[in-house]
Amino acid sequence: MRRIPVGILGATGMVGQRFIQLLADHPWFEVKALAASDRSAGKRYADSCRWILPRPMPEGVGHLVLQPLEAETATGLDCRLVFSALPSSAAGPIEEALARAGYAVCSNSAPHRLDPDVPLLVPEVNFGHTALIAEQRLRRGGEGFIVTSANCSTTELVLALKPLQQAFGLRRIFVVTLQAISGAGYPGVPAPDILGNVIPFIEDEEDKIERESRKLLGTLGQGGVQEAAFILSAQCNRVPVADGHTECVSVEFDRRPTRQEVLAALRDFKSPPETAELPGSPAQPIQVRPESDRPQPVRDCQAGEGMAVSVGRVRPCPLLHYKFVVLGHNTVRGAAGGAIHNAELLVAQKWITP
Amino acid sequence: MRRIPVGILGATGMVGQRFIQLLADHPWFEVKALAASDRSAGKRYADSCRWILPRPMPEGVGHLVLQPLEAETATGLDCRLVFSALPSSAAGPIEEALARAGYAVCSNSAPHRLDPDVPLLVPEVNFGHTALIAEQRLRRGGEGFIVTSANCSTTELVLALKPLQQAFGLRRIFVVTLQAISGAGYPGVPAPDILGNVIPFIEDEEDKIERESRKLLGTLGQGGVQEAAFILSAQCNRVPVADGHTECVSVEFDRRPTRQEVLAALRDFKSPPETAELPGSPAQPIQVRPESDRPQPVRDCQAGEGMAVSVGRVRPCPLLHYKFVVLGHNTVRGAAGGAIHNAELLVAQKWITP
Amino acid sequence: MRRIPVGILGATGMVGQRFIQLLADHPWFEVKALAASDRSAGKRYADSCRWILPRPMPEGVGHLVLQPLEAETATGLDCRLVFSALPSSAAGPIEEALARAGYAVCSNSAPHRLDPDVPLLVPEVNFGHTALIAEQRLRRGGEGFIVTSANCSTTELVLALKPLQQAFGLRRIFVVTLQAISGAGYPGVPAPDILGNVIPFIEDEEDKIERESRKLLGTLGQGGVQEAAFILSAQCNRVPVADGHTECVSVEFDRRPTRQEVLAALRDFKSPPETAELPGSPAQPIQVRPESDRPQPVRDCQAGEGMAVSVGRVRPCPLLHYKFVVLGHNTVRGAAGGAIHNAELLVAQKWITP
Amino acid sequence: MRRIPVGILGATGMVGQRFIQLLADHPWFEVKALAASDRSAGKRYADSCRWILPRPMPEGVGHLVLQPLEAETATGLDCRLVFSALPSSAAGPIEEALARAGYAVCSNSAPHRLDPDVPLLVPEVNFGHTALIAEQRLRRGGEGFIVTSANCSTTELVLALKPLQQAFGLRRIFVVTLQAISGAGYPGVPAPDILGNVIPFIEDEEDKIERESRKLLGTLGQGGVQEAAFILSAQCNRVPVADGHTECVSVEFDRRPTRQEVLAALRDFKSPPETAELPGSPAQPIQVRPESDRPQPVRDCQAGEGMAVSVGRVRPCPLLHYKFVVLGHNTVRGAAGGAIHNAELLVAQKWITP
Repeated sequence: MRRIPVGILGATGMVGQRFIQLLADHPWFEVKALAASDRSAGKRYADSCRWILPRPMPEGVGHLVLQPLEAETATGLDCRLVFSALPSSAAGPIEEALARAGYAVCSNSAPHRLDPDVPLLVPEVNFGHTALIAEQRLRRGGEGFIVTSANCSTTELVLALKPLQQAFGLRRIFVVTLQAISGAGYPGVPAPDILGNVIPFIEDEEDKIERESRKLLGTLGQGGVQEAAFILSAQCNRVPVADGHTECVSVEFDRRPTRQEVLAALRDFKSPPETAELPGSPAQPIQVRPESDRPQPVRDCQAGEGMAVSVGRVRPCPLLHYKFVVLGHNTVRGAAGGAIHNAELLVAQKWITP
Repeated sequence: MRRIPVGILGATGMVGQRFIQLLADHPWFEVKALAASDRSAGKRYADSCRWILPRPMPEGVGHLVLQPLEAETATGLDCRLVFSALPSSAAGPIEEALARAGYAVCSNSAPHRLDPDVPLLVPEVNFGHTALIAEQRLRRGGEGFIVTSANCSTTELVLALKPLQQAFGLRRIFVVTLQAISGAGYPGVPAPDILGNVIPFIEDEEDKIERESRKLLGTLGQGGVQEAAFILSAQCNRVPVADGHTECVSVEFDRRPTRQEVLAALRDFKSPPETAELPGSPAQPIQVRPESDRPQPVRDCQAGEGMAVSVGRVRPCPLLHYKFVVLGHNTVRGAAGGAIHNAELLVAQKWITP
Repeated sequence: MRRIPVGILGATGMVGQRFIQLLADHPWFEVKALAASDRSAGKRYADSCRWILPRPMPEGVGHLVLQPLEAETATGLDCRLVFSALPSSAAGPIEEALARAGYAVCSNSAPHRLDPDVPLLVPEVNFGHTALIAEQRLRRGGEGFIVTSANCSTTELVLALKPLQQAFGLRRIFVVTLQAISGAGYPGVPAPDILGNVIPFIEDEEDKIERESRKLLGTLGQGGVQEAAFILSAQCNRVPVADGHTECVSVEFDRRPTRQEVLAALRDFKSPPETAELPGSPAQPIQVRPESDRPQPVRDCQAGEGMAVSVGRVRPCPLLHYKFVVLGHNTVRGAAGGAIHNAELLVAQKWITP
Repeated sequence: MRRIPVGILGATGMVGQRFIQLLADHPWFEVKALAASDRSAGKRYADSCRWILPRPMPEGVGHLVLQPLEAETATGLDCRLVFSALPSSAAGPIEEALARAGYAVCSNSAPHRLDPDVPLLVPEVNFGHTALIAEQRLRRGGEGFIVTSANCSTTELVLALKPLQQAFGLRRIFVVTLQAISGAGYPGVPAPDILGNVIPFIEDEEDKIERESRKLLGTLGQGGVQEAAFILSAQCNRVPVADGHTECVSVEFDRRPTRQEVLAALRDFKSPPETAELPGSPAQPIQVRPESDRPQPVRDCQAGEGMAVSVGRVRPCPLLHYKFVVLGHNTVRGAAGGAIHNAELLVAQKWITP
């Protein structure tokens, strides 16, 4: 297959860099266009980007000239598919302009996630929600469209919850997150705020988890996505960890399973056939850890090349039914890798054609 | 008042060092005897202790010779009151032997906390539970006795819960902790396990929080302490923080208060008259933080010289009634400072006389 | 003595906050005026400052209204002495304007440190260099003047070197620093750059150490300060430490002393009579640590309330004569505390009168 | 080529785990035997090893049964080549016994590094020193032998120094290290000692750097290795970094080159033909970083899959000739990877035959 040319919006930031890294050897996609804020536009990527990932900048992108991002001008990118790593403050109108101009936009940004005609996707969880694209095209006109990936904490949470929802139904959920600093981008959190410290607050994050999870785990019907009916309460913390969000979860189901049933549901969860062959789909989307003290961000966030989530410490909860710990890589599965995974799904479903 | 001579068991460990630091200028107590494991016994404290606290070892203790800790021999300490910072594995029989030998034992260790005739104390919370001492003396004989301070996470939690229990009643509680490494003592957690990492497990900790909190917030009656009836579910994590445990709490009350009522109950909480004059009682046991991102361990664990707890982010919980964040200093209020506070209460109540 | 009213320029930054904390109970000075960048001017300090120090904002400053900092307007401060914690980019002209307007300016900023008529001071090291003030007044006119404290790394280094210079003469010096993040202010270093990492570069820092140390350890003569003649080579690193700069030093002297002589020179160093009675002078300006693995930032930076430096590991150097490790508190002795110490010296020497 | 069966001594420790990880897909070697302390002997590796590396334990080793390590019994390993990751306290006699029993021992441990008849190797630096093996066999008898890899800090240092020695000669060298915690193994450094702290001491490390570097950069002659004549002074620090040792180096050469000559010597350094084709030889053994603030452990220690060293900030030194920063991966190039590299050299040179 000839590779599909893609563009990246917000290419110089932390998530933008992850996009570039993960797309470097992608079998289906090839980075052909980069866009960034006006300050950088016109410069070569290698000259403009302060590359901060542990492995070197991939060859072949450094020479690309950054294009401007203004809504009216961003539509000159030499590609049909764009990944957006724009900050929420800027993403809304630019992504809309691109969709109107005919681009497929796979966004990692927040503004359109809850739009009724915009799919919010985690492929293994709700691959069928892409059907909203037809509705979106009707409403907004043109061939272009926007699909979104969820907030990082939400993505790993719904992946762990999906098999439990299927097997036992979800009624009430508690989640407390311990989130890595990479989730705040670059420069992100000032070092004096987080070194040896905990910040028990991440702006808008609790609301995002509570709302996005219900759309992701909702049901697509005639009138769009009907949100799942469970009640979820989230508390979010920033901790001095580089990558990998840890989540302490307690769940009450429609019917109380045994611990073995919970473990089996998690362990046996496979990518559905609609997503199993996507390049970004891990062989085992959920890895159940048997140790008493796992998962841990340093040791487990690379599971499945960062695309699997790890679950451990499944045990009864005195208040709800079971409690457990979920961990995922927040800038791979939870950001750039998730948006690329969505694009792969769109190709497999022929919403995007080479 | 002439100062009461006291001894410290386990004087070389991290909590032992805190005892020494906090007792250095104590108006009521004077360190006269130190005991440690056989390996150190017979050596001068200054020669045996690897002092690791940020401020220097107080003068006047370095020359004390460490005495052995065997149950049969520990009873030769030149004092009537001993503080125990022994590891749980050793504390049980040694503390019993000392009590039998007539010592008042203020223990920070776990083995006797749930004994029906042993007070488990946080002075502002349940000062009256010291009445169990009479029962204990009857049962066990002699003038000596054991009182215990609670697990570090439990102590700060019940202090924050006390005014809410009084005002609204407690029905169901969720708590997820983010605990500092000093809680594991020295050497404690290996650096490769925690640097830039989270360990979602602390042995026995969840069980301690769930059980000790019900005794602390229970009611003293004819047959001893009747445990509080609320249901509590705890999840515990170790995070790369030096001092200060953060706790994310959600609570359901017997009746749902307004947010203003919750804030007022917390803000207006004062030391009861029975404890207000103790040297270790902070002017304001609970400090309510108005900022959106506080309390934080680095910035708030020194509140009230480490004896106050800080509460912030009080907000409605979609699942229970309210959620908020509690923070306290785990080796001051949550360990050595708490046990000293208990001893002060015992002096004020005449259980210990100079 | 009635306390002297003082002002603080750059009061909302990290060093500005240290000034406020250290001046809160100062016996000679009282904070009466605060100035900050235009963005904050006109607001109450409590409303404008994001207070980030571990202990709470002192009472009595929160209500002060921040005044603007423009060179032409900064001269309306209701005090005669101002402390400057301005960034280097802004400090130069503002400090000059204030001096011209008659203020005594004790600056922690870099621009004027190497001006020939401006004293660069560490009181125990070169208290006599204040004589330059007379020259400065002559040259620049008026009663006002500027004195400066040195760069943080330089301050602790010269304090450790002073007794060695006196006893043995200094010829060649190597120093490699491991510097805390607080040295970069707030927000300062982005967390993704420093968490679990080392940055082997601090802008201009090596040059500052190499040049300022020669002025500080130089000799005041007819034509001003004659720089010390030693050669110094510095390499500077940022490390994930909150407070406290560690420096690995190797020194060649004019004559090679024994190790005991080096230790004795360090241990016996006292504040000279001219500075011994200043409130900020530690009883022992240099604390020699006997342990093999000290000094350490977490455990030793509070020595002498942050105003003493600690020296350890004195041992022969195969290349020069001796090597050792120096540690000091970079925002106390190395910044705000140092500038206040300078002001105390100026009061003692009657350059400033109440 | 059929893969050569190899054994690992000390297989459960941190370096032992790195050996297993790096040998998992090695083209020349296959792990067939594991040995560990008596406590673990007899158990399956998967049951005995607390695997702590970021990526999962490779398949195919978990079922291997750990064999005992006593000098008299360790010789029953089913292989001819063993890698030793034993602690220094145990390595000496066991490695000798194995060599006597006919094994080729590639050790990462310290005891035999300075034995006159034992090669101390960094292949690109002194591949010819393997000739000592002939002498060793003569002296000690039998076909077995010991070769050693150097201390971690020394390895990366001599790799950076080699091209400079070749081009300009080495006279005097200063080095201050900032070393990662993984260098201390597991459990290694207690977290309370290093979180947010610096420990300015690593036992024996300075002596190792000063002595091993002279042997590695020495000349093989009739009477063995004649040590290089330069003088080196080292100061070693532990910093809160997971992997990657940073070294601040200053060097005086026999003749002073220009900065461009220094950069060219570093950049142009290639693996000599004798080592260029080894599987572990990086394409570019020294990577020169052009940025002002690199190399950094988090971002550069993976260079060349952890087998290359990075050099940056080459600039004149006021005291010696040039100063620069070196960084390498301490448990890959500096430990397990280095010892495997040595074994590859031995195969290429036919000291080991399949």
